[in-house]
Amino acid sequence: MTTDFPYEMTISALRRAYLSGSLTPEQVMQTIRKRASEYEEYNIWIHLLSEAEQAHYLDRLQQLDLARFPLWGIPFAIKDNIDLNEIPTTAACIEFAYTPTASATVVERLIAAGAIPVGKANLDQFATGLNGTRSPWGACRNAFKPDYISGGSSSGSAVSVALGLASFSLGTDTAGSGRVPACFNNLIGLKPSRGLLSTKGLVPACRSLDCITLFACDTDDANLVLSVAEAYDADDEYSRNNPFQNQKRHYGERQGPLKIGVIPGQQLNFFGDQAYQQAYRDTLKQLETDGIEFIEIDYQPFAEAARLLYEGPWVAERYLATQPLIDDNPQALFPVVREIIEPGKALQAGSLFEAQYRLSGLKAICNRQLAAVDCLLTPTAGTCFTIEQMLEEPILRNSQLGYYTNFMNLLDLASVAVPTQMTTSGLPFGITLVGDAFTDRALLSIAKRIHRQFELKIGASQYELQSTAQPSVADYNKIDVVVCGAHLQGLPLNWQLTERGATLKAKTKTAPIYRMYALPGGPPARPGLILDEAAGGAIEVEVWSMPQSQFGGFVAAIPSPLAIGKLKLADGTQASGFICESYAITGAEEITGYGGWKAYLNR
Amino acid sequence: MTTDFPYEMTISALRRAYLSGSLTPEQVMQTIRKRASEYEEYNIWIHLLSEAEQAHYLDRLQQLDLARFPLWGIPFAIKDNIDLNEIPTTAACIEFAYTPTASATVVERLIAAGAIPVGKANLDQFATGLNGTRSPWGACRNAFKPDYISGGSSSGSAVSVALGLASFSLGTDTAGSGRVPACFNNLIGLKPSRGLLSTKGLVPACRSLDCITLFACDTDDANLVLSVAEAYDADDEYSRNNPFQNQKRHYGERQGPLKIGVIPGQQLNFFGDQAYQQAYRDTLKQLETDGIEFIEIDYQPFAEAARLLYEGPWVAERYLATQPLIDDNPQALFPVVREIIEPGKALQAGSLFEAQYRLSGLKAICNRQLAAVDCLLTPTAGTCFTIEQMLEEPILRNSQLGYYTNFMNLLDLASVAVPTQMTTSGLPFGITLVGDAFTDRALLSIAKRIHRQFELKIGASQYELQSTAQPSVADYNKIDVVVCGAHLQGLPLNWQLTERGATLKAKTKTAPIYRMYALPGGPPARPGLILDEAAGGAIEVEVWSMPQSQFGGFVAAIPSPLAIGKLKLADGTQASGFICESYAITGAEEITGYGGWKAYLNR
Repeated sequence: MTTDFPYEMTISALRRAYLSGSLTPEQVMQTIRKRASEYEEYNIWIHLLSEAEQAHYLDRLQQLDLARFPLWGIPFAIKDNIDLNEIPTTAACIEFAYTPTASATVVERLIAAGAIPVGKANLDQFATGLNGTRSPWGACRNAFKPDYISGGSSSGSAVSVALGLASFSLGTDTAGSGRVPACFNNLIGLKPSRGLLSTKGLVPACRSLDCITLFACDTDDANLVLSVAEAYDADDEYSRNNPFQNQKRHYGERQGPLKIGVIPGQQLNFFGDQAYQQAYRDTLKQLETDGIEFIEIDYQPFAEAARLLYEGPWVAERYLATQPLIDDNPQALFPVVREIIEPGKALQAGSLFEAQYRLSGLKAICNRQLAAVDCLLTPTAGTCFTIEQMLEEPILRNSQLGYYTNFMNLLDLASVAVPTQMTTSGLPFGITLVGDAFTDRALLSIAKRIHRQFELKIGASQYELQSTAQPSVADYNKIDVVVCGAHLQGLPLNWQLTERGATLKAKTKTAPIYRMYALPGGPPARPGLILDEAAGGAIEVEVWSMPQSQFGGFVAAIPSPLAIGKLKLADGTQASGFICESYAITGAEEITGYGGWKAYLNR
Repeated sequence: MTTDFPYEMTISALRRAYLSGSLTPEQVMQTIRKRASEYEEYNIWIHLLSEAEQAHYLDRLQQLDLARFPLWGIPFAIKDNIDLNEIPTTAACIEFAYTPTASATVVERLIAAGAIPVGKANLDQFATGLNGTRSPWGACRNAFKPDYISGGSSSGSAVSVALGLASFSLGTDTAGSGRVPACFNNLIGLKPSRGLLSTKGLVPACRSLDCITLFACDTDDANLVLSVAEAYDADDEYSRNNPFQNQKRHYGERQGPLKIGVIPGQQLNFFGDQAYQQAYRDTLKQLETDGIEFIEIDYQPFAEAARLLYEGPWVAERYLATQPLIDDNPQALFPVVREIIEPGKALQAGSLFEAQYRLSGLKAICNRQLAAVDCLLTPTAGTCFTIEQMLEEPILRNSQLGYYTNFMNLLDLASVAVPTQMTTSGLPFGITLVGDAFTDRALLSIAKRIHRQFELKIGASQYELQSTAQPSVADYNKIDVVVCGAHLQGLPLNWQLTERGATLKAKTKTAPIYRMYALPGGPPARPGLILDEAAGGAIEVEVWSMPQSQFGGFVAAIPSPLAIGKLKLADGTQASGFICESYAITGAEEITGYGGWKAYLNR
C-alpha cells in the first residue's frame, strides 16, 4: 500500500525544491509534523521534536549557504539509542533514560552539514531484537501493512523514512537492526564497515560490534549521507580510518560483468514463507537478465558465525551495557529483553576466548569465499511476521529474522540491504549485498545497479525510483594495466604482475595507431610503443587487472624510457599501460610489422 | 665472556664454507653435538636429536642444490612447544608430552629450504615466563654468565644460538619470550607481526596473541629466515596475509634521517640496575652521533596495556591451553606456572569484554603516537637477574622483566630486539624497536643500521659482527613523485597530491635535458616534458613523497599524453615523474626558456 506524499522526500528532490524556491525547510517540517500525527498509531517516535526544540536548527540555516551544505534543510530521524543534544536518550527503557549534553559524533556531523533532526525514533529496547515489538512505546507498525512488524531494532528509523517523515535516518546494527527494517519497509539499509561511523554517543548493545547505520530512499542518498557522516574519531576506541579506495565521493553504478555469490538452495531458509521464497527467485531471475554470474557459496560458516551472536558469549556485552540497571532494577527491562540479556552475567572468559578462536577460523573461511566474488547476495530476511505472530513466539521468530544477518558484524563485513520486489500481498522484499570490511562504496555501486533493475516506488510513497544516470566507475580496487612486452604471459617480467596479485583479464590489440620499436639494452629485451595515428599498427597486448594498492609499486619500478600512460585499445577504450619516451627510439629497430612482441621474439 | 667457536655460525658464513667445500653439514652437526655435551649443565635442550633422528634431514641435502636452497645445511633449534615430526613436544611438561605426526608449518618450510633441526629447546613451561627457570629440565643458563638467567620463555632457543649450537632458532613470544632472551644473550630477536608466521603446530599459551619468533646472529639472517618461514596458512585461523610493502626480500639498512620515539626518563624503569641504566644511556648517546632525532612518547598507554596481559583476563587463554591437564592433574604443572594459570578458570566473559574495550582505546592512543615516528625504541629489559635472585621472587621479578615487552602482542605490534652494549660486568644489553603490525622489514632495516653502530661480537662467539655493505633502500612505504605543472603547490591539481597524503619533499630542478611544451587543451592548462639531451633545459620541479598505496590510483587517473616515467633531477638522481608522449607536442608551443611552469603562467 503506497501513501500519497505531498512531494518527493529524497535528498536530491528536496534540494531541487529548495534551490528553486518552491519549498522551504519550515514547510517541510510542518508537513512532517502534520503527517506524524496521522501516523500516531504506528508508534514511530519516542520523542518527536517540538517546534521550539527544532527552531534553532532551522534558524541556523539562514547562515548556511544551501549550495555548499549538502544536507541543508534535510530532515532526518535518530534512533533513540543515539544522543541528540538536550533531548532524552531512552534506548526504549524509561528507567534508563538520560539527557545528553552533546550529540553523538555522527549526529553532530550531519547537523553541521545542514540536516534537521525530526525526532528520536522507537526501537527494540537496548537494540535487542530484529522485530520492532519490544518497546514500552508500543510495537512499531510496518509502513506498508500496519498489522505486520516493522522489523527492528531500528523500527521507527525505518518507518519514518518509508512514510515520508524524514528523508533519511540513523539506525544501529549489531545483529541486523539496520537491514531487516530496511527490507520490510522498501528502503536502502546501509550497514557500514565497523568503525567507519563513530559510535561515540551511542548506547552500546555489543560494544565491540555495534555500528551506526543509514536508512535512505536510494543508494545516492545513502552514499551522500555516508560521505558526511564518516570520519575517524579519536574519541571512539573502535573508530577506524577509511582506506582511500573506500572514500570515493563521486560514485556511480558498477559497470561490467558481475560475479555474485549466492546461497545454495538447500541452505536457504524461508521458514515456510512462499511469497518471500518466490520474491527471492524472481529477484535472481531478473538479475540474470543483466548478465550477472551467480556462484554458489557455502553458507555453513556464515550461519555458524551467526549463531554465535546470541547462543555464544557475546550476550555478556549486552549484560555489561545494561549494568547497573539490570542488577539493581531488573523489572525495568522489557520482559523478553531481560530474558535474553540476563544469562550474559554468568558467561566465562574461557568460553569467550574459545568462541573468538572459532570465529577467527570462520572468518578466514568466509573471507576466502568472498574474495572470489564481487559480493555475496542473500535474502535480507527469510520471512516477515504479523505483530500477533511475533508476540506469540518472540525469541524463536526473532532468531528466524536474523538467519541471514547475525554473522555480519562478528565477521567484520560491510553490507547494503536493497529492496527488489513487492510480494503479491503487498509486503516489500529485498536482498542484502555483503562484502569485506571497507567495501562500502563498492557495495553501494552494485546496490545502485541492482536497485534500478526493479520497478519500485520510493519507500511507501507514490514516487517512482528515479533512474538518474550517474558517472560510471570501474572496479574500485583494481586497475587495468595494458602490457605489450616482457610482462606478457610467459615472458621474463610477468612475475612482476602475478606477485602483485594481478590476473589476466583479456588478450587483445591496441587501436591501429602505435609503432613498436625493439629498444636497445636488456636483458630482458623490451619493446617501446609510440603513438602515431598516421603510420601506426594494431599491436597485440594483454590487459591485466591489478589491485590498486599494488599498482604504485609496480609503476615506481619501471625504468626509463618506459612509462605508464594511457593506451587506446582496439575496442576504443583506454587503459593504463606501457608507453615509451621518444628519445629512446633513435636508432632502434621498428618492429610494428610483426604485430606483437611475441611474434617478433619468434621471428 | 666469549667462547671460541671453531668457525662462524652465521648463515652467510656457513654458506660460504659449504660453497667453498671447506666444511660439510655433517661436520657442523658433529661439532654441535660435541659442543652440546660441553654445555650440558646449561640445560639448553629438552631433546637433542640423535644422529639417527637427524640422518634423513642430512641425507636429503644430496638431492638439493645448495645454490637454490637458501638454508641448505643450516642448523636450527626449535623451542619445545613447536612440533617437529616424530619427536615429542613437551612444552616443558612431562605429563603433557605428545609425539606429533607432522611438523609445524614454519618448521616444515624451513626444512623444505634445507635447514637441519638440531633439537627441541628448553623453555619456561607452557611458555609462561620471561626468565628460563621454570622447567623440570632445569633452569637454562645465560650464555655469557652462567649464574645468570637466560631469559625466557624461549630460553634454550636463545642460548643455543648464542653458544653456536645452531645458526638460528625458533622461539615463541606472547609476553616477551622472543625478545628478553635475545637481549640477555646478545642476539637479534624478531617478534614478527601476529599472523605473519603460521602458528599451526604450536602449543598455545594465549592463542589469540601467540607468535612464533626468530633468534638470529644478525639482521640479515633474521630477514632471510623470515622470508623462508612466512606464508599465509589457511589452516591457521590467526594467519594473515603479509601486505606487499612488508615483503621485500632484498633489504638493506634504512637510509636518511630517522625519527625514533623514546620513553621519557621518569617512565623508564631499571629496577635499580645501574649497569643496565648506563648501557641504555650509552646506547642513545651512540645513536645520537648517527643524527637520529629522538622524540619522547608517553609510555603510560603502553604500560597500561602491558599490565592487562597477566593482571587481566588473558590468563583465561593460558587456562584453556592447559586443559584438561590442569583440571585433572594440576600437580603435573610446575608450581609457579600453576599458580599463574589456575585463576584463569574463574574469569568472567564480561571482564574480558571490558578489558578488550579498554585495549581498543589504548591501541588507538598508541598507534597515533607510533604514526609520528619511524619506530619506538625501548630497553628490551630493564634488568637481568641471577638464577638465585629469580627463584627468590619468581612472580614479581618476572613481571619486572616484562615491563617493556608485555604490551606488544595485545597492541598488535611488530618488534625487533637488537643488542647494543656489553655491561662492564659482561652481561649483554639491548634495545627493542617497535612498529605497527606489518612493519617487520622496515624495523629490520632500522635494526641493521643500529646494530652496526656498536662494536659487538656475534652471540657469545669471538667473531666480530660483520659490517657487510648491503644495497640501500628508500622509505618502504613512500614513493617520490616529481611534478612540473598543474600539480605544483598552489596550482589547480595539487589537491590530487595532498588528498592522498603526499607531502612536499623538495623544490628543485631537473637535469638540463628536458624541453617543456604548453600542451593544448585544459583547463587546467598543463605542460609536457620531452627528454632532449642536446637541446633541453633545467626545469623547475617539486618532489612530493606519496604513500605507496595511494600512488597507483594517482597514476591511473592521469590522462594522455601525460604519463609517469622516470625524470632525471639536477643532482643526478632519478625519480618517478611526469613525462609526455611525443605525439602531443606537434604544434604545441615550446616554453623551455621560461625554466618552469609557474614562470610561464606568470609571463
